[in-house]
Amino acid sequence: MKIILNGELFEIRLTEYTDRIEKLEEEKKEISDQIATVYQEAESKGFNKKALKQALKMLKLQKEERDLQLELTTQYLEEIG
Amino acid sequence: MKIILNGELFEIRLTEYTDRIEKLEEEKKEISDQIATVYQEAESKGFNKKALKQALKMLKLQKEERDLQLELTTQYLEEIG
Amino acid sequence: MKIILNGELFEIRLTEYTDRIEKLEEEKKEISDQIATVYQEAESKGFNKKALKQALKMLKLQKEERDLQLELTTQYLEEIG
Amino acid sequence: MKIILNGELFEIRLTEYTDRIEKLEEEKKEISDQIATVYQEAESKGFNKKALKQALKMLKLQKEERDLQLELTTQYLEEIG
Repeated sequence: MKIILNGELFEIRLTEYTDRIEKLEEEKKEISDQIATVYQEAESKGFNKKALKQALKMLKLQKEERDLQLELTTQYLEEIG
Repeated sequence: MKIILNGELFEIRLTEYTDRIEKLEEEKKEISDQIATVYQEAESKGFNKKALKQALKMLKLQKEERDLQLELTTQYLEEIG
Repeated sequence: MKIILNGELFEIRLTEYTDRIEKLEEEKKEISDQIATVYQEAESKGFNKKALKQALKMLKLQKEERDLQLELTTQYLEEIG
Repeated sequence: MKIILNGELFEIRLTEYTDRIEKLEEEKKEISDQIATVYQEAESKGFNKKALKQALKMLKLQKEERDLQLELTTQYLEEIG
């Protein structure tokens, strides 16, 4: 495909980029599948997948923030639950 | 726009549908803005927005399931935290 | 629920906010259902739902930008397709 | 963490799963960053990122379906645009 870049004619093969993107997207999909498999393994051992996902999500917060979130969520649920 | 439906020529105005969809999308956007406003109000009164969203999300679960999720998330965080 | 706000004790009912949020979320859900119904109606008249959604999404762009997107997408697909 | 699985007491380390999940999530994030980099490279060469993403998305469809989508989207935009 001919691309005019800053007035100059270039023959740049778009597939140079799309092949790389497609390969990386495939790798990303494979890793997502592996993550799903590990969750299934944990679940088969008796761990609760939803709670595990929530715990891993909250792990990204500082401990104080995590504890505050858990405490307030529990407190709010007691009032509105 | 002419549409051939089951062999018959129809003059169906696409805008008959798109106008309705656009109007509904606008209404939906307005309601999202109102929801955001209520969260801001609650936040201004000292409520924690993230915990409030989490509590409302969990409210859709049965009480037992909610309590289990909170308990296990706390327990898992203690181990991996 | 008692909230200490700027040192003062307040009795603020959390449900004052959560009831409003839940009501608005319900309204939002109803509108989403109505949008889905209009798409189904259009589909039953022979319109292509996916193309209709893409057209409405692109309608938010300026005409020049829309035409450019369509032209380049077609051009790129010819090269990588 | 002690887990009672089918009546038997197991000492299963939750971190056995969470460490693996976190490592995989990191790998996934790295690949997402690489994909973003390739898009930037393509953009620097004059390719349109949004059209490129749309083309790669449509590439997953059969050619006939792709051509139909492009044709109908163009047609619908002409009517409602």
